[in-house]
Amino acid sequence: MASTPFAGVLVPVLTPFIATGTRSGEPDAGRFIAFCRFLLDQGADGLAIFGTTSEANSMAAGERMELLDRLVAAGIPPAKLMPGAGACSVTEASHLIRHAVGHGVGGVLMLPPFYYKGMDDDGLFAFFAGVIDRVGSSALRMFLYHIPPQTVLGLSLDLVGRLIKAYPQTVVGLKDSSGDWNNTAALLDRFPGFAVFPGSEVFLLDGLRKGGVGCITATGNVNLPGIRKVYENWRTPQADALQAEITLARKTIQAYPMVPALKRIVAHFHGDPDWAVVRPPMVKLTEAQSAALLADLAKIGFTLGERRREAAE
Amino acid sequence: MASTPFAGVLVPVLTPFIATGTRSGEPDAGRFIAFCRFLLDQGADGLAIFGTTSEANSMAAGERMELLDRLVAAGIPPAKLMPGAGACSVTEASHLIRHAVGHGVGGVLMLPPFYYKGMDDDGLFAFFAGVIDRVGSSALRMFLYHIPPQTVLGLSLDLVGRLIKAYPQTVVGLKDSSGDWNNTAALLDRFPGFAVFPGSEVFLLDGLRKGGVGCITATGNVNLPGIRKVYENWRTPQADALQAEITLARKTIQAYPMVPALKRIVAHFHGDPDWAVVRPPMVKLTEAQSAALLADLAKIGFTLGERRREAAE
Repeated sequence: MASTPFAGVLVPVLTPFIATGTRSGEPDAGRFIAFCRFLLDQGADGLAIFGTTSEANSMAAGERMELLDRLVAAGIPPAKLMPGAGACSVTEASHLIRHAVGHGVGGVLMLPPFYYKGMDDDGLFAFFAGVIDRVGSSALRMFLYHIPPQTVLGLSLDLVGRLIKAYPQTVVGLKDSSGDWNNTAALLDRFPGFAVFPGSEVFLLDGLRKGGVGCITATGNVNLPGIRKVYENWRTPQADALQAEITLARKTIQAYPMVPALKRIVAHFHGDPDWAVVRPPMVKLTEAQSAALLADLAKIGFTLGERRREAAE
Repeated sequence: MASTPFAGVLVPVLTPFIATGTRSGEPDAGRFIAFCRFLLDQGADGLAIFGTTSEANSMAAGERMELLDRLVAAGIPPAKLMPGAGACSVTEASHLIRHAVGHGVGGVLMLPPFYYKGMDDDGLFAFFAGVIDRVGSSALRMFLYHIPPQTVLGLSLDLVGRLIKAYPQTVVGLKDSSGDWNNTAALLDRFPGFAVFPGSEVFLLDGLRKGGVGCITATGNVNLPGIRKVYENWRTPQADALQAEITLARKTIQAYPMVPALKRIVAHFHGDPDWAVVRPPMVKLTEAQSAALLADLAKIGFTLGERRREAAE
């Protein structure tokens, strides 16, 4: 098995959309580039752009490819990027991946064909194999994306094992957003050396203790320094206390619709109200929800502002 | 509310893929055109190309648009076409629809943004409204596509009502593939004049008796004359017996994975084995499954062959 090009805390970067004017609703490349730089400055170990948190599936393939072009042109190191290449067809997924690999990205994050339900492992294997074969690049490093709450189409342990065996230089890791620790633990037990990232920092410490390599987490958009502190100190006596702190922040935020809540937090702490814009079918938080969220965060002493200053020192 | 451009029995046309050679796996425009002609000759009241049965989501947007171009160039009347325009982004869905409307199609069938789950009606309304506004054509006739077994994201009665009210000239009908007769009945009760098509011929007679306008059904690919007989004779004393016959055929076929089974039946009765090819994540029936399916059909006297000759007379 090839070694993982990624470890640590990766952020599925929020995608800003233009708030007003004739280009209202279009992806905002300027804010996106600036925010990616900010996250890398804060210590992000990788940027999993075009994930669920990024509203990637609310963008056409062409929009995603253009944003990636802009990001690379602006000097964001491609090796730090793990773009999502989710698509239900072998043809579109392989088109997206070829484009990303052409830019020299560190890896891609790959959903199953999520329109379909109840597909058996033979069909799913053929799908992933079809994409890998069609891309046909030894530079491709693929991370499987297991997120049954969204896809209602999971990746079984057997399927993961078959893909690793068939493509040991390509299929190098997995993001487990099942929210089911037992599944993460089973992956870690069964596939040593395979890079398993829990999809939430709630499982960061447990994952690291069991051989995981980090996490890829939505809240990295707003709480990266806190989450990285757990990653850096996981072997120290402070680890559990640090984990408890980030778990509390996570639970506070996820009491609200996650993506609109994260965008509202970015808008607030970065002093940029336009960041709150989402694409349909997502809906912005109401003013009442926003006020309640910020009050809940204040109660637990969550201050992205201070952490930003710490990170900049 | 605008009147429906479609009524009767519509077929979500299977998409053939090339079986061998360098273009293996690509959409087979030649067989597709020939099969669409065959279905129109058999009396199809419309062709709902690029639906679930068509493996539409196993094709990239460009592949679907090219197939539509080919179909229209070959002389299939655009007014008979109701292409699916399923996509999770407003941008891609509106791009597909603009292309279809540009060809003068009778209408389009529109999925909700199926990657997302648990979205509220405000967000879904904004999605559909965003697509309609972006297309910006008075020629657009949209049929909503309610298929919770695939999308796990349904269209509530309230949402349907809001869309009809906001876009009375555009949102003219719905395909109900919930498999839940109570939902179909509730739609018919609540929205008189709105064109409701059950997504299975099992509900054809019940639907017609309650004000429905026909059905859009996968098995129309192989049992169109039988299903049309119910449509033509629904007010006669024979209606229930005819309905029982098509219900039996449906239940026989759907004991197998539906799309591979239908393709196998087409391959058999049209004497064209290449028709059995599916795209991943679907898998062809095994030889044992194929033999069992054909035996089950023989047992109930299902003979597409004879029906084809009848239709040609």
